[in-house]
Amino acid sequence: MSEVYGVRRDRLRDRCAAAGSTGVLVSRPANVRYLAGAVPPGAVLLLGPAEDVLLCPRTLAGDPAGGRPDERVRLSVLPSSAGDPAVAAAELARTAGESLAIEEHHLTVARHRAVSSVAPRLRLADLGLAVEQQRIVKDEEEIACLRIAAEITDQALGELLESILVGRTERHLALELERRLIDHGADGPAFPTSVATGPNSGRRGHHPTDRRVEEGDFLSVCVGADYRGYRCEIGRTFVIGTSPADWQIELYDLVFAAQRAAREALLPGAAYRDVDRAARQILSAAGHGEGLAPLTGHGVGLEIDEDPQLAPAAMGKLDACVPVTVEPGVHLPGRGGVRIDDTLVVRQEADGGPELLTITTKELLAL
Amino acid sequence: MSEVYGVRRDRLRDRCAAAGSTGVLVSRPANVRYLAGAVPPGAVLLLGPAEDVLLCPRTLAGDPAGGRPDERVRLSVLPSSAGDPAVAAAELARTAGESLAIEEHHLTVARHRAVSSVAPRLRLADLGLAVEQQRIVKDEEEIACLRIAAEITDQALGELLESILVGRTERHLALELERRLIDHGADGPAFPTSVATGPNSGRRGHHPTDRRVEEGDFLSVCVGADYRGYRCEIGRTFVIGTSPADWQIELYDLVFAAQRAAREALLPGAAYRDVDRAARQILSAAGHGEGLAPLTGHGVGLEIDEDPQLAPAAMGKLDACVPVTVEPGVHLPGRGGVRIDDTLVVRQEADGGPELLTITTKELLAL
Repeated sequence: MSEVYGVRRDRLRDRCAAAGSTGVLVSRPANVRYLAGAVPPGAVLLLGPAEDVLLCPRTLAGDPAGGRPDERVRLSVLPSSAGDPAVAAAELARTAGESLAIEEHHLTVARHRAVSSVAPRLRLADLGLAVEQQRIVKDEEEIACLRIAAEITDQALGELLESILVGRTERHLALELERRLIDHGADGPAFPTSVATGPNSGRRGHHPTDRRVEEGDFLSVCVGADYRGYRCEIGRTFVIGTSPADWQIELYDLVFAAQRAAREALLPGAAYRDVDRAARQILSAAGHGEGLAPLTGHGVGLEIDEDPQLAPAAMGKLDACVPVTVEPGVHLPGRGGVRIDDTLVVRQEADGGPELLTITTKELLAL
Repeated sequence: MSEVYGVRRDRLRDRCAAAGSTGVLVSRPANVRYLAGAVPPGAVLLLGPAEDVLLCPRTLAGDPAGGRPDERVRLSVLPSSAGDPAVAAAELARTAGESLAIEEHHLTVARHRAVSSVAPRLRLADLGLAVEQQRIVKDEEEIACLRIAAEITDQALGELLESILVGRTERHLALELERRLIDHGADGPAFPTSVATGPNSGRRGHHPTDRRVEEGDFLSVCVGADYRGYRCEIGRTFVIGTSPADWQIELYDLVFAAQRAAREALLPGAAYRDVDRAARQILSAAGHGEGLAPLTGHGVGLEIDEDPQLAPAAMGKLDACVPVTVEPGVHLPGRGGVRIDDTLVVRQEADGGPELLTITTKELLAL
């Protein structure tokens, strides 16, 4: 695995060198982890012409935590009194180069000022979203982690469905799911688990409340595991009780059709906005255009919400090996609604088309 | 409660006006919540001469989430396409004032640049840690929230101690504690719960592993509830089995003495560093000076780690109504250790001295 990190760093270094920067300071945690294999709390990564250094503050426990970095990165643990690792990095960069690319979208104004003042002759350039862009297409090792994260998530959700749900609160069901993720080997939940019942169902990002599951409810769940830093997402909607109402079946079928259309649009070369439109036009044609979420899906990886965004105004086209969610939904105020959410990997048609990672059934289950 | 937020905003506005700023842009979430009573995800607060506006992006669910703000703050929900609320705030501020104070320690370089470019004639000044400093001394309503958070935490911990512990993993015990926090009315854990057994015990911020509790172990737990945004912290160390070993009793008594000394030093007017020294010198005199954490305690409130820091180099003195943790510990590599951690509120001696919020016993329990 170690080689992978070196290759990633070299690619970034080459790109920055071509733009005139001799050093690169990476501070956004997911980017540090992507390039160094680990991210102790508060650590920053300095790519220099001579060596790569991971600078991290001595933690309160005394040792650096957060995993072991790639062995070809020098680990420098700063004394408690040393202050900001970014400043230490700038000091180091000053001796080696003339120009340092920094992440202006992550570094605060105050840190930027401190970096400038410790190395006033160092020219600071903007790295922009170079690392985030590099992270969009995943290698097979990253996809393997996502696949395991999805397996864990499917298992946890499957077990929950076998238990009695009526009378339990949204909060308890969410905690129960998170416990089961850990049971099955997750490092943690990929994001705060959402469980929504009755009138809350179908709301994206609903924060679980003390409302209890009742007969006749829609129950929508959105959950995902973090496995070795890689995060997936699944969303399903169920009906509680023996037989769904007509409006529930109709709404479910509609969202299912929209989600399938977007899944089928996931091919290398497809425009992000066209994937979004595939789902959006089906929901809009049925009169639900107004309240729709601003996106139909998004990339996943070391963060749960990465590029690309599958949204009406998004620019760009899908590549192979990009994992994304497809998660349309409709929420009817006061009544509830349906969301169906999968994590898939974009694949060439010759390779079988989009690879579905979250395989829990999408039939409308009555529980 | 609504009046409280207005008073807080007026105090900040007056302070900034005296420093020459006609507007204030607050972006750090805990600061926004402190001043507006709510913080929808991504929201920023603009204090202007004419009105106060909470600008937030339309969430993916369609509605702003994160609680209802103070009614005298105008809520402005931006359309999905509007981009950064900080930029929208700058645009608004441009019409009303000449100088805008911003949080340079929170705003990124990229946002700062976007703010400057939309309002190029607006003079940007640094607000610094003005809001954080205002947050140090709590009012009685804030302390009441912390008191409830501590009660919930004591209950959750008490229940765990009545269950069978041997054979269970650190991860499971941590999840169990978090579930019980929610059961008792917490909005969530105040920070990731730490459970450490055997050789892991006594390590500050230990991340729970799959190690199981064994007979003869030290078991140290650090947990806290979030109640209405207010976060407390308790840490206790127990012995598993019928009778602790001599070294365990000795170490426990030592840490207990250090913790008591620091608790007793908590009085208005006491220097932060003197509270730290009260605990540190006892542990150092016993030969444990080397591996100690860089601080003995810290403020708590809307964030779990606030000012003041009770540390050797900290400048400043305690005021009444400042809630802090007192949490010395010793960890012996390979053997384990002891941490004892309370949340207390600094009070005048005439008012009975420090008010202990976390009341779980500090006797060495053999479980």
